[in-house]
Amino acid sequence: MKAAPLEGKTVIDLTSALAGPYATFLLSGLGARVIKVENPERQGDSSRNNSPYVTAEGLSVRRSAPEDMSVSMLLRGRGKESITLNLKRPESRQILVDLIREADVLVENYSSGVTARLGIDYESLRRENPRLVYTSISGFGAGADNQDRKAMDTIVQALSGVMMTAGEPGDPPVRFGLPVGDLVAPLFAVIGTLGALLHAEETGEGQHVDVSMLGALTSLVACEPFDALETVGLPLRTGAYVPRLAPFGTFHTRDGWFAICAPTDQFAAGVLRAIGRDDLLGAEDFSTRDARVANAERLHGLIAGWAAEQSLSQALEALNREQVPSAEVRSTAEAVRDPSVHERGEVVPLHHPQHGHFEGLYGSGVPIRFSHSRTTTDVPAAHLGQHTEAVLQSLGYSAEQITGLRAAGVL
Amino acid sequence: MKAAPLEGKTVIDLTSALAGPYATFLLSGLGARVIKVENPERQGDSSRNNSPYVTAEGLSVRRSAPEDMSVSMLLRGRGKESITLNLKRPESRQILVDLIREADVLVENYSSGVTARLGIDYESLRRENPRLVYTSISGFGAGADNQDRKAMDTIVQALSGVMMTAGEPGDPPVRFGLPVGDLVAPLFAVIGTLGALLHAEETGEGQHVDVSMLGALTSLVACEPFDALETVGLPLRTGAYVPRLAPFGTFHTRDGWFAICAPTDQFAAGVLRAIGRDDLLGAEDFSTRDARVANAERLHGLIAGWAAEQSLSQALEALNREQVPSAEVRSTAEAVRDPSVHERGEVVPLHHPQHGHFEGLYGSGVPIRFSHSRTTTDVPAAHLGQHTEAVLQSLGYSAEQITGLRAAGVL
Repeated sequence: MKAAPLEGKTVIDLTSALAGPYATFLLSGLGARVIKVENPERQGDSSRNNSPYVTAEGLSVRRSAPEDMSVSMLLRGRGKESITLNLKRPESRQILVDLIREADVLVENYSSGVTARLGIDYESLRRENPRLVYTSISGFGAGADNQDRKAMDTIVQALSGVMMTAGEPGDPPVRFGLPVGDLVAPLFAVIGTLGALLHAEETGEGQHVDVSMLGALTSLVACEPFDALETVGLPLRTGAYVPRLAPFGTFHTRDGWFAICAPTDQFAAGVLRAIGRDDLLGAEDFSTRDARVANAERLHGLIAGWAAEQSLSQALEALNREQVPSAEVRSTAEAVRDPSVHERGEVVPLHHPQHGHFEGLYGSGVPIRFSHSRTTTDVPAAHLGQHTEAVLQSLGYSAEQITGLRAAGVL
Repeated sequence: MKAAPLEGKTVIDLTSALAGPYATFLLSGLGARVIKVENPERQGDSSRNNSPYVTAEGLSVRRSAPEDMSVSMLLRGRGKESITLNLKRPESRQILVDLIREADVLVENYSSGVTARLGIDYESLRRENPRLVYTSISGFGAGADNQDRKAMDTIVQALSGVMMTAGEPGDPPVRFGLPVGDLVAPLFAVIGTLGALLHAEETGEGQHVDVSMLGALTSLVACEPFDALETVGLPLRTGAYVPRLAPFGTFHTRDGWFAICAPTDQFAAGVLRAIGRDDLLGAEDFSTRDARVANAERLHGLIAGWAAEQSLSQALEALNREQVPSAEVRSTAEAVRDPSVHERGEVVPLHHPQHGHFEGLYGSGVPIRFSHSRTTTDVPAAHLGQHTEAVLQSLGYSAEQITGLRAAGVL
């Protein structure tokens, strides 16, 4: 049996919603034990109350039985133990301290300033475990002075510039359905956490790792020199086509869309052959990159006219025959059912802890294949507080103490 | 002086274009020594020949002097040493083996199958250094049988479903200008590399880490249960607004766009006050979430009508006063100049090694703040082969040997 990269590591998970829970899902997938701490007052992580739910009869807008579980939680809660703990109650502090003394990592995504008010910020907790890696994901960074500014995905998308990278000049901003504002920050948070764990292995010293949703997404936007390109006359928003790489873009057939990426002379010649225009193969207008850029509109028009007469499979067959880089544009429903992606565990079926799997229920895996390490994403999400007693007993709390804490509203 | 998380680690970088070089840029930013191996035959990494260039006079579409450097290389080459080595020549193998014997990590993003043809795949190289972490980034996964299928960003976007998460039902696919197909895979590759380094620290055993561009992006798409939402009647493509969260979306003022995310009763009431419609505060049509969803079109129409009469700053001031989560939609040019993002090092100025910085030249930082570790992104990119002699001499090659290898076309 292979070991997992984070085997033996324990993560205390104080996150909710999407960005934080996705980070701790990945840490669990890499082999860490993740103990998710949820607030008993508000029915735990808000994701538990996101419609739709998986019920005994399948998907439903409403919950009908206590064991029904939201698809969000089914997805993000995998591989985590769940305990309840009301961090606003003073009695909770000793329990949290007991937890982190045995832990390697804590991850939180409270709004900036909340952990300090609760007395559980990094400076307060590091005394209890100097090796602890304490990872914060927030909208604008730990200690940002705009605490009141709520960082939801669409707010972060708006501020990052990403909405203005799609569409055509003058178009409205383009909101991505894929919540990139929520999903990029946790990837950097995991990178930071693993970096800090390596540092801790060598020095015995833990630290605070602080990732901002806005900063993470803006840094990704800054990976491409959009500014510099616009300055020299290569505009960013060019819609379905990219004239500077012509032939390049998405085209419509009788029954679906496909994409072509054929910026080189060789690929462009393949496109002309595929669309039955061998007569243009030597033509001055299309034989060099500069010529194709100058005549991009005509070239894209030729392809669009051809595509409109084809079925999608005919078009792809013709392009493949000429070895033109091309692919069908798939819906999310098609994409998450790709057998090769399933085989690699990049997308996996989801299982409700009692009701099992229903067709249509898929979720992210860990899209990393290790030759000598194991990843795991098949432990179903826990119900709220399912592991409270087991975890507290392992910390030395007696059954009577646990009953008392529960009655007092601490658990 | 703080230590960097990857201080003392050496990375051999066999990558080119965007996905691979971004991964090794992040490893360098986390403190690793990165030795970039470039092919002398083809003027090195293709990114060196991407227009525009930074010249002594500033940005230019064309290169005019040998020291001019592409913005792409200025961005992605930071913090790396460059050596030339022609891996198709048999004499190169001993040099590569000498390099990896001293290294901790190798990263490559050749098309699937190429490393085996060159005799430098993981199985061939692990014998020379069993601790080596060997990370591959490819279009469809190492060993995928569709070697001939070129994986460019737009192809990966098309297949992943992400193009169908923006826009409205029936709209054409929406290509993102931000190359998410290229940029998500390297984040998982870095996570996999760090996980494998932790494994190696504990066991002394290296391994192969295999990340696919399609799998990485599809796994991110599968983080949201789009399928399940559509099944219960919550469609994915809803354009500028999200009716199920109303009021929620982007709106146009006289001089710009803003986003509102106000799905709760409290935020929705704030929106009504901000747009001067206190008279609707108790109205049955808007006071509950279900009512707002049913009357979303009217509610969004009211906001759009109000916004059209405002300046952007007036609109944001009114919304902020009522504590409504909202933000201006920024261009990429505005976003990468955000002072708070610069202060946190999430975006940083770029410097040409000879010509220095020009206004407008910004690039990604490492968007992770460590309390006790250092990150570095300020070492300018190297010219092709700038470190060939220094690196080979440190491996024990004499000046004569180096001259000979260079004359023979190996370097």
